Amino acid sequence: MKKLINSTDNLLAESLSGFVKAHTDIIQLNDQPHFIQRTKPTAPGKVALISGGGSGHEPLHTGFVGFGMLDAACPGQIFTSPTPDQMLAAAQAVENGGGILFIVKNYAGDVMNFEISSEMIDYPNETVLVCDDVSFPKSHSTGRRGVAGTLIVEKIVGAAAESGLNLAACKSLGDRTNLVTASMGVALSSCTVPALGKPTFDIGEDEIEMGVGIHGERGRERLSMRSATEIVDYLTSFIDQDLNPQKGQTALLHINGFGATPLIELHLIYELASRYWEKRGINICRSLIGNYTTSLDMAGCSITLSLLDEEMLRLWDAPVHTAALRWGC
Amino acid sequence: MKKLINSTDNLLAESLSGFVKAHTDIIQLNDQPHFIQRTKPTAPGKVALISGGGSGHEPLHTGFVGFGMLDAACPGQIFTSPTPDQMLAAAQAVENGGGILFIVKNYAGDVMNFEISSEMIDYPNETVLVCDDVSFPKSHSTGRRGVAGTLIVEKIVGAAAESGLNLAACKSLGDRTNLVTASMGVALSSCTVPALGKPTFDIGEDEIEMGVGIHGERGRERLSMRSATEIVDYLTSFIDQDLNPQKGQTALLHINGFGATPLIELHLIYELASRYWEKRGINICRSLIGNYTTSLDMAGCSITLSLLDEEMLRLWDAPVHTAALRWGC
Repeated sequence: MKKLINSTDNLLAESLSGFVKAHTDIIQLNDQPHFIQRTKPTAPGKVALISGGGSGHEPLHTGFVGFGMLDAACPGQIFTSPTPDQMLAAAQAVENGGGILFIVKNYAGDVMNFEISSEMIDYPNETVLVCDDVSFPKSHSTGRRGVAGTLIVEKIVGAAAESGLNLAACKSLGDRTNLVTASMGVALSSCTVPALGKPTFDIGEDEIEMGVGIHGERGRERLSMRSATEIVDYLTSFIDQDLNPQKGQTALLHINGFGATPLIELHLIYELASRYWEKRGINICRSLIGNYTTSLDMAGCSITLSLLDEEMLRLWDAPVHTAALRWGC
Repeated sequence: MKKLINSTDNLLAESLSGFVKAHTDIIQLNDQPHFIQRTKPTAPGKVALISGGGSGHEPLHTGFVGFGMLDAACPGQIFTSPTPDQMLAAAQAVENGGGILFIVKNYAGDVMNFEISSEMIDYPNETVLVCDDVSFPKSHSTGRRGVAGTLIVEKIVGAAAESGLNLAACKSLGDRTNLVTASMGVALSSCTVPALGKPTFDIGEDEIEMGVGIHGERGRERLSMRSATEIVDYLTSFIDQDLNPQKGQTALLHINGFGATPLIELHLIYELASRYWEKRGINICRSLIGNYTTSLDMAGCSITLSLLDEEMLRLWDAPVHTAALRWGC
């Protein structure tokens, strides 16, 4: 294993320190316990949005703290849930009279720790659980995983909270956005967690993992390598079956790199996925291509389709100023 | 080799098609010959900025076409210079009465083809040659390579051209920006060019290539793997010797990922590099961290220090609206 680190023990602390130093106009770091919050104050009464999860998915979630998105993010160790004390401290720091909305990816550890925090804090609070990964059926025992669609929920609810929407309405909007968002990924290689020092899973020279999770969890099936068109047809057909988009519906198409796949390939995947839905009469009117919900150094990508209505499109377009997403300001 | 492509022959065309489809508000594609240009017209008399080079370094240069940066970019095949007919067609499409400034990375093929175009076009034109890679001495036979500092030249001259600076002044500003910009990189792995199907170079499990080029060219020396602090000290010391920054000088620090290195590591490298120069009294007042000048799927990064004066900082901060860099609009 070769990594640009000093030691696995201080990797997260040194990385967070560099991250906030590069973005002092937007964010600051609370050291003990770790959380990232905005530098600039928000309007009194604004709903505070808090997310978090294991590190190793950067820029998710810390890169989405700032005007128009999150108020705070709690990074756990790599692929490890943050602890309730992080969420409690973040909640105390950013609550501003409007209550708190937790945005949580559906993983057992994250869900449990956010639930503990939710019960312990004195402020009104709600949780949006994101579960956009359609690689397993809706009936799956622990439910579907939250993956690349999470940032879409964070962006849309973030803009709504900024405009003054109340806690119940933000919660409802987040749930609705989650429901119209579906993702599925493919891995060409494993990732390597620094503390383990070896690939999370073995994969052959001619194999790909269809429906892989963002921590390298087993997907739907292991297949032989094939053309980009065949891979895209496979992933999009599952998303299509799940969302069942209707002719003329508007959608955001998000191609997310897992960390080690060049942009030239992600652009090509966008071309093929947009063709797939355009042929079916879907109006792909917004796009996002790049490494946003990564799995350290895994090669591969995920495709996310989000059937945004007029209100959601307006909120997607609203100004945002974070380290990883910025427009309109 | 596993790549998300259909065939090496149509990789570039399918990728460019997806890229422009995702950004129709900013850019459009000319198909034969290939170049990317802005969708929106520019002010009459504005100097037109044209860059280009081999593909495989995305988002450089196509991702920097748009308001406040380039007017056009000519992508060659992967790691292959674009041809003079691309540059000529781009020049004819974007010249708007202010002449043309070519921004060219110092590689023999790029330099030759841009020179041919420069001689063939009827418009007044100048060229800024970027040569920021300090891994070889200034006296090196073919001169130093142009690497991650190129985007800094493109951003600063782009903002100046947008504000109405004339051709001679843009050329002079570009040369000055190049002179105060120095970069050096390290590779932890090779990249794999799709048409070749195997890694460009061999590198051992415990080896790194110091001073590597962005196409996987040999660097300064092959060393054993070491800590991030030792790697950063090595790279920064060469940059420091070259630029010889003085206490109190303002600088932009750019950490560029080569494509397969996670953001969590790039943030850590930023922390260590900024500490190095802050200790020496340099005022790191601007930052840019991410995959901007990539080498396909190479693991590793480069460090760029750019000693920007007050005018250059103002131009760096000016609004920009491209696929890969966007702020202020």
